[in-house]
Parts: sequence; structure tokens; C-alpha cells
Amino acid sequence: MAALSCNAYALGLSHRRPAGSSPRRMVVVRAEAINPDIRKTEEKVVDSVVVTDLAKPLTAYCRCWRSATFPLCDGSHVKHNKATGDNVGPLLLKKQ
Amino acid sequence: MAALSCNAYALGLSHRRPAGSSPRRMVVVRAEAINPDIRKTEEKVVDSVVVTDLAKPLTAYCRCWRSATFPLCDGSHVKHNKATGDNVGPLLLKKQ
Repeated sequence: MAALSCNAYALGLSHRRPAGSSPRRMVVVRAEAINPDIRKTEEKVVDSVVVTDLAKPLTAYCRCWRSATFPLCDGSHVKHNKATGDNVGPLLLKKQ
Repeated sequence: MAALSCNAYALGLSHRRPAGSSPRRMVVVRAEAINPDIRKTEEKVVDSVVVTDLAKPLTAYCRCWRSATFPLCDGSHVKHNKATGDNVGPLLLKKQ
């Protein structure tokens, strides 16, 4: 089951097959979790920021689900992007 | 290659095998991209929010990389979580 859905995910990442080429085995895409570790006991990981509480002029929030300081960004997306060819990055909150 | 690293990723998500069961083939985890589609021409997808510009009392920002209104949340994490067993959710920005 894991291997099957995983293959589907991999297909989702690859480019479309040229017209006329033989069909792939599966067409389902994006069947894998993107958060391996963070707060897995929670049904849904939602975080709130009261923007008036922001202390610094700029605060970066994680969107790669790899940060050791989640929900804050710790730069882990750099390693993730390098390892996988991905292009994810944080959400920057600016006070002005 | 995709299938191999993908299998590793799936293993990372599965629970530990019971003692005495046969070992799995790979132990590497988190080798897959998490953003299948969004702004793939950009080297790194970073978004900025000037918090004084927020119009509504609450604005949800996507962290699942599946939203059709990215960087805003459109609720796509619900479908993603259901399809994959994941537990990701948005970042909520509150004016107060």
C-alpha cells in the first residue's frame, strides 16, 4: 500500500507523458504525507499568529514541515530542497 | 530512483515494525518533494505578508502546497490529509 501510493506520488512529480506513449500504471498524484514528524498526535496542525504580538520586523514561518523550531522557519527548507529538488520556502511576516 | 526514494519516504511515515518482524529494505526518510505544482519555475517559493495590510480579522495561509489560491489557504489540506493520513493545516494570521 505504501509503495503503491508512493509510486503514484512519484508519477505526480514527473512530467506529463508525451501523447501516444504507453499509459503508466497509475494516475493518482500526491498521495503521500508531507509532514513526517511534527505534532503527529494532533489531527490537524494549525498555528495562529496574532500579528500585533510579532516582536521583530520580520519573522519567517515554516512551510516545509522540516523545521526544528516549527511553526517558525529554521532554514531546513534549504536542505530539503537540495535533497529532493523541491522549491519550497517560508512565509515571511513583516511588521511593515 | 523515484520509486526507491519514495519507498524510503513511505517507510518514514509508517509505524515501527513489531519486534521480530523481517527488516525493511530501506531506512532513509524524507527524500521526496512536497510541492508538486506551485510556481515550479521559481528556485524557492517565498511569500511575504505585510501584516498591517491584512484586511480581514483572520487570514489563513497554506502550508500543504495544494491550495489553488496559494499562498492563501483554500482548504485543500482537508483532501490531502484524508488521502494520505497526513495532519497538516494552515497558518492563521489574526489581527488581534
